[in-house]
Amino acid sequence: MAEVIPVRILPGKGIEVLDQTLLPGEERYLLLDDLGGVCEAIRALRVRGAPLLGLVGAAGMAVAAMSRGSDGATLAAAAAELIETRPTAADLGAAVRAALGEAIAATATGREERLWRFAIAFGERRREEDRAMAAFGQELFDQKTSVLTHCNTGALATGGIGTALGIIRTGWEQGRIEHVYATETRPLLQGARLTIWELQQLGIPATLLPDTAAASLIASGRVQAVITGADRIALNGDTANKVGTYSLAAVAARHAIPLVIAAPTSTFDPACNDGAAIPIEFRADSEVGGFGDQRWTPAGTPAYNPAFDVTPAELIAAIVTERGLIRPPYWSAIRATLGEL
Amino acid sequence: MAEVIPVRILPGKGIEVLDQTLLPGEERYLLLDDLGGVCEAIRALRVRGAPLLGLVGAAGMAVAAMSRGSDGATLAAAAAELIETRPTAADLGAAVRAALGEAIAATATGREERLWRFAIAFGERRREEDRAMAAFGQELFDQKTSVLTHCNTGALATGGIGTALGIIRTGWEQGRIEHVYATETRPLLQGARLTIWELQQLGIPATLLPDTAAASLIASGRVQAVITGADRIALNGDTANKVGTYSLAAVAARHAIPLVIAAPTSTFDPACNDGAAIPIEFRADSEVGGFGDQRWTPAGTPAYNPAFDVTPAELIAAIVTERGLIRPPYWSAIRATLGEL
Repeated sequence: MAEVIPVRILPGKGIEVLDQTLLPGEERYLLLDDLGGVCEAIRALRVRGAPLLGLVGAAGMAVAAMSRGSDGATLAAAAAELIETRPTAADLGAAVRAALGEAIAATATGREERLWRFAIAFGERRREEDRAMAAFGQELFDQKTSVLTHCNTGALATGGIGTALGIIRTGWEQGRIEHVYATETRPLLQGARLTIWELQQLGIPATLLPDTAAASLIASGRVQAVITGADRIALNGDTANKVGTYSLAAVAARHAIPLVIAAPTSTFDPACNDGAAIPIEFRADSEVGGFGDQRWTPAGTPAYNPAFDVTPAELIAAIVTERGLIRPPYWSAIRATLGEL
Repeated sequence: MAEVIPVRILPGKGIEVLDQTLLPGEERYLLLDDLGGVCEAIRALRVRGAPLLGLVGAAGMAVAAMSRGSDGATLAAAAAELIETRPTAADLGAAVRAALGEAIAATATGREERLWRFAIAFGERRREEDRAMAAFGQELFDQKTSVLTHCNTGALATGGIGTALGIIRTGWEQGRIEHVYATETRPLLQGARLTIWELQQLGIPATLLPDTAAASLIASGRVQAVITGADRIALNGDTANKVGTYSLAAVAARHAIPLVIAAPTSTFDPACNDGAAIPIEFRADSEVGGFGDQRWTPAGTPAYNPAFDVTPAELIAAIVTERGLIRPPYWSAIRATLGEL
């Protein structure tokens, strides 16, 4: 069983990221030692996954201090540059803002070192949060369960054992999970490329399906739960996650199968009362109608290509966080979990 | 504006089919002059689309008579061979059985010619049915409408102007359709490869989306109807269509947007009281996790790959046939449309 390490923090040198766009064909690490390189890697999805983007955002601030300097204006500009690479991911913005606050509180000469330490501590905390989520998540399984998951929420997405996939992995290790079904997750195929690869590395029995087949799978009775991650959660429980989650939720609800979200509390956005307030990132038309160098559709065809959709809270059975399970009614339960806002 | 001709019947020579697996990159016709070739072309989806499979089934019987002989046992065996190539498509089985009945009624020496004539008349009738469906379907649009469609239901799928796409095309010609959104339709990408190509040939404004983005599109208010074809319809209105239709229907229902099925009455199966009785074809694992020569997932990964799913009748707003619109309650309305069974 091989542990996957998607990001390595090298204080004073930069960060090494596993280029996830090349997986599963090739495992290549890139050393990023300036801010432009970090931003490019995020935008191009060489590094992705909402919680991991938090770590990369924190470490990216250290890289900025190292490569551009530590005065307040430079760091504030670096923070803005990092945050706008992926506008929907709550963790990225939260981590970058926290790192900036941490740096500003130090004297100018100590800022770079403080940012490296902050990033390392951030990664350690993420790994602990994943373990806590995985432990709390076991409550979901009162019988041997087969699950459907969407996109990639494993080690590649968090740097720990994962959010939804961490729960699934721990459930399998403890004999609660029977089988895992993973969607391909068009257009960028994180399920087909990353989740299947991670599950195979872990020796967990897994079956791939086209996104179109998820409703048929749920209707067939082959799965007893759908578990996904989240990119941003509003205070009423509405959840932005990888595009395609909403239709899984709509079909699961029709078959009385729980759709469960797994995400650290940093994914909640106190500035969003409901899903309508969550900004949704749209990506390039060229991601649709092809993959990599292969095109299936005439060049120049316009596309509708949001990276995320919003699943209404009413379709979500529970949200697993590192502080425990949150169940409806969400408005009060989320406030109770987050504490005073 | 180029008319697309997916099948040409050449009595005494065979049938020429446009190899749809090569579209949109290449337009290549294959001459099929023996039954094995016809069956291979159907199985490999070189020719596809429920109504067009009816025509190919009918013509395939003529090819069988030409290449294998016209005695009853030979033709009956050929019919069985043709029907089992695609077990879900109702039109294929119905057309092959009708052709067999037609042939058997003739003297042995006249059978081949009778089968060629039957196939040509079958194609002519299909084209008329498409025109009738397109005319009846205009009732759906009481305002300028943008629509979402799934898979391919145009000329490539029927040999006429199409079922769902025929309604859309006619609606656009008559000023009722504003814009067309087409899903990619994984795993075989009929939307990305065929529907977008057909819409562009016709000059109709069209946007492609990943299957995962359909729920977001519907929730956004950009479309006012979802229109698809069907491969087999049960007597209670439950409809087997290209996998992915069910989740479109579930999401459309949540947003009070009509999901409409367009299919000739030959798509109804009097032997199926409901969707549970419809046999569903499962296809090769290798269709998932890649396309063509490109693989995105480790080799040998198991897949769940049904070609179709069943949309429950309660989620279908109307069924457009060549005899008019059928609306709920379906059990009585379908019987009334089909006549005594």
